[in-house]
Amino acid sequence: MLALTLGLMSSDERYVVGVDFGTLSGRAVVVRVSDGAELGTAVHEYAHAVIDDRLPATGRRLPPEWALQVPDDYREVLKTAVPAAVAASGIDPALVIGIATDFTACTMVPCLADGTPLNEVDGLADNPHAYVKLWKHHAAQPQADRINELARQRGEDWLPRYGGLISSEWEFAKALQLFEEDRPLYDRMDHWVEAADWIVWQLCGQYVRNACTAGYKGILQDGRYPSTEFLEQLAPGFGGFVADKLEHQIGQLGASAGKLTAEAAAWTGLPEGIAVAVGNVDAHVTAPAAQAVSAGQMVAIMGTSTCHVMSADVLREVPGMCGVVDGGIIAGSWGYEAGQSGVGDIFGWYVDNAVPPSYHEAAAAAGVSLHEHLTRLAADQAVAEHGLVALDWHSGNRSILVDHELSGLVVGQTLATRPEDGYRALLEATAFGTRVIVETFASSGVPVKELIIAGGLAKNALLMQIYADVTRLPLSIIDSEQGPALGSAIHAAVAAGAYPDVPAAAKHMGKVRRGVHVPDEERAKVYDQLFELYLELHDNFGRHTKLMRKLKAIRRNAVEAK
Amino acid sequence: MLALTLGLMSSDERYVVGVDFGTLSGRAVVVRVSDGAELGTAVHEYAHAVIDDRLPATGRRLPPEWALQVPDDYREVLKTAVPAAVAASGIDPALVIGIATDFTACTMVPCLADGTPLNEVDGLADNPHAYVKLWKHHAAQPQADRINELARQRGEDWLPRYGGLISSEWEFAKALQLFEEDRPLYDRMDHWVEAADWIVWQLCGQYVRNACTAGYKGILQDGRYPSTEFLEQLAPGFGGFVADKLEHQIGQLGASAGKLTAEAAAWTGLPEGIAVAVGNVDAHVTAPAAQAVSAGQMVAIMGTSTCHVMSADVLREVPGMCGVVDGGIIAGSWGYEAGQSGVGDIFGWYVDNAVPPSYHEAAAAAGVSLHEHLTRLAADQAVAEHGLVALDWHSGNRSILVDHELSGLVVGQTLATRPEDGYRALLEATAFGTRVIVETFASSGVPVKELIIAGGLAKNALLMQIYADVTRLPLSIIDSEQGPALGSAIHAAVAAGAYPDVPAAAKHMGKVRRGVHVPDEERAKVYDQLFELYLELHDNFGRHTKLMRKLKAIRRNAVEAK
Repeated sequence: MLALTLGLMSSDERYVVGVDFGTLSGRAVVVRVSDGAELGTAVHEYAHAVIDDRLPATGRRLPPEWALQVPDDYREVLKTAVPAAVAASGIDPALVIGIATDFTACTMVPCLADGTPLNEVDGLADNPHAYVKLWKHHAAQPQADRINELARQRGEDWLPRYGGLISSEWEFAKALQLFEEDRPLYDRMDHWVEAADWIVWQLCGQYVRNACTAGYKGILQDGRYPSTEFLEQLAPGFGGFVADKLEHQIGQLGASAGKLTAEAAAWTGLPEGIAVAVGNVDAHVTAPAAQAVSAGQMVAIMGTSTCHVMSADVLREVPGMCGVVDGGIIAGSWGYEAGQSGVGDIFGWYVDNAVPPSYHEAAAAAGVSLHEHLTRLAADQAVAEHGLVALDWHSGNRSILVDHELSGLVVGQTLATRPEDGYRALLEATAFGTRVIVETFASSGVPVKELIIAGGLAKNALLMQIYADVTRLPLSIIDSEQGPALGSAIHAAVAAGAYPDVPAAAKHMGKVRRGVHVPDEERAKVYDQLFELYLELHDNFGRHTKLMRKLKAIRRNAVEAK
Repeated sequence: MLALTLGLMSSDERYVVGVDFGTLSGRAVVVRVSDGAELGTAVHEYAHAVIDDRLPATGRRLPPEWALQVPDDYREVLKTAVPAAVAASGIDPALVIGIATDFTACTMVPCLADGTPLNEVDGLADNPHAYVKLWKHHAAQPQADRINELARQRGEDWLPRYGGLISSEWEFAKALQLFEEDRPLYDRMDHWVEAADWIVWQLCGQYVRNACTAGYKGILQDGRYPSTEFLEQLAPGFGGFVADKLEHQIGQLGASAGKLTAEAAAWTGLPEGIAVAVGNVDAHVTAPAAQAVSAGQMVAIMGTSTCHVMSADVLREVPGMCGVVDGGIIAGSWGYEAGQSGVGDIFGWYVDNAVPPSYHEAAAAAGVSLHEHLTRLAADQAVAEHGLVALDWHSGNRSILVDHELSGLVVGQTLATRPEDGYRALLEATAFGTRVIVETFASSGVPVKELIIAGGLAKNALLMQIYADVTRLPLSIIDSEQGPALGSAIHAAVAAGAYPDVPAAAKHMGKVRRGVHVPDEERAKVYDQLFELYLELHDNFGRHTKLMRKLKAIRRNAVEAK
């Protein structure tokens, strides 16, 4: 280590590139291997963004709850954002020793044997199932329900590893939807590939399934997938799915998947033959970027949605967690994941849809965003002054209920309720959602001692203080604007051999400010009272009544009959 | 009758004036006795409107849930709107034979023996309890709770006449609040007077308690008020309240309370000595204006709130109704009343607080109000397409739960929920609220066969169709823009002796369009499904859980601690 460190301080400095593929864009960052300095960055927005209305090629209408993407939009990030970031950094591209990527998940690309996405195959552009199913494609809920029901009946031992529930967002539910709704296309597909791995395949010409998504989204536990018997019982003919479409070589996080091909070198402007790291997920890759690789350190990556990741030495079954995976975050540790389906996008929806003109005008007059204006007004309130409690389930609930048929709720409105009241209630609802997760982990034997916040919402000081007060945890904040890309860069450095493992690299390249927000006991006590009401709503609507499910069913019938 | 009718058709036509005192303004209308033609109208807005923040005289801050008014604002209506309406009508004032008034209720004026309101007494202008407590003053809920609890314990036989619950808005709860919070002022008060009777007192110099408010708001049943023993047990020292402050001569609706005084003649420009009718309530007076004086004809007066009134020959105990009163609507019939605390004001609150600029701009571009714009967008939807169910309790629930600690709720929001969705859900919520009332009446032996709509909301065709579809009842609509004032004019004509009774006058002077909206079976079926969910929310939040009450309590503590 000493020799290595000295080497890094020498004049022949080395660099890595991390590329973060988000929901709407891809971001590349050039990072110095010795200290994690971020020297240049560039963003490329996907031309087709999220397709949830009509297919771009033919205008074909999509049913409700669908969310698709176009794989070539991802290649464009390699061709534009990577060279732009290198140019912005001012470094010599020849000094780049590795590249790594992270992706949204579970985002699935149906491919031919050579990795060609089916939507690029002649004659299939009008077929919705030929496209990428984005993580937030929620149309496979009926399939997920059946997977869960059968797994419970059969007592499948992998089910508790996912908190007792498999999500409709994951590999098996989405694949079963494809199998049942478009059998010819399913038969034509050779590989059912995580986008996280597809992009690595584009870079190094090798298909390697990363341990993270294979575990969290692909139900790979203790080296085994769900059995042929299970799958055949689930749907006759589906029994061969794992063997035929899914199973493939697994790569550990931080390992090298292969070398950069000549073609990808031409796209990116990087040296042919440099290390390409095994694929990774945007949330999980952020933990080392925030130096949060030890037990009790929960990283909440807060953006449109929130993902919670935490490593631990012990294996425990946490009800409603997204999953626990051996090596799912850091090779050699148990990686725990939980999540909230909607966070920043709920605030954004509110700001776009529920705030009157006078507030827009006041924000403009003050020269701040509407978010900032509402935040300032909300910050003047005492806890509970607005008289509202909300449920943050506008996109369903990922943890701990794992139910995408749930929906938003707000209670307590009077004629005196103002826009900033509703806004603050939603901020608080997401904090209560996090507290439910933290308490569930604690009561399952995986205590949380520190919350480390990454993602765009870390900038909202009111929101951060609410999280500290609601959870009674000290809040640290990642000290990088681009946590996932920095995390990928750390993995690139390890894949290239610059550090022995990810924790060692994180120590040098990760960045965090500790204890930025601490809980206030007086506010925390009032929040305890509101949290009790939140829990009552949570348990009633999430567990006892089927009202939200019925409401969605009535709506579906109404839309279909129209 | 024949002679009378012929007489009315003769050239020496006669006229009456009806004056409707609303929440924010008073409206006078000049009406032809023979056929109810409305010849002139004028409105005067109260200078002090509703006082819910600070006292006008001194700036003293009011606690939450208070709502006060200034009595002299009512006199100004007599001085300005009445002469303006007569002038607008072009008639000779000498041909006016009577005047009648209707008022919001329960709106209470604390008075000296001569009718002087306490806030006009030297040295009392800084005393909140010296002012008029408007119907929507909701700060006496603790007192109402105790009245109900004790009445239940003692098995008071008047309690079922009010659906089992006395409202915090009514005479006893508001008086008890005054008694307990400002004993010196209570002792100084000689009469606790309904504003409906106070205004008549101003016109004719006589204090007569009208049978309507005395029954509905003053717990006068079978000639008796709650007993001294009951009141003394409620609060020591309060036992003399009825005898000392409340009890007074009762006048039947349509009877004459006295003759217009010289002073009031000078204010109004009307002939001294003409008939002044016994006071009345805005909702109840509207029934004859809509020719709805028979069993099964429920009038819904839909404005900021909705009041439901219906006459019947039978006495039944309807759970959660506001009350049943002998002669409460039409002398000689049992008058039933129910109500919804918030309707139009909920829509108004939404439009003012929850709709983004692009909608305001589109409405302006189309040259329509924002209400109209949202209504058009909402009208394009299939029933249940928006995926929402709401509770219409932003101002609490009057029938059938009688609980002002309840609050609004909306469930089903997703990131795709648009402003028109929330708007339509609120329209529907109020229709579901009406259906709960209609079904409760029916199951108690007082069936509803027709809904007659009066009030400003009758103009919204979508809202009306929703009500028809949700209730499966044919909807008739009053054919007057000023139902209460017309109803008062009908009572003025009866008080002046132009008709033998109110039903006879209503037949000639009332106006209604029958069967304007009829239920559609297909839509009604879908609404049945949504109504089932509404009922689940209604029963859970209104009966089983105390969540909304707890939320209000936590809020109160937060505001007080600030």
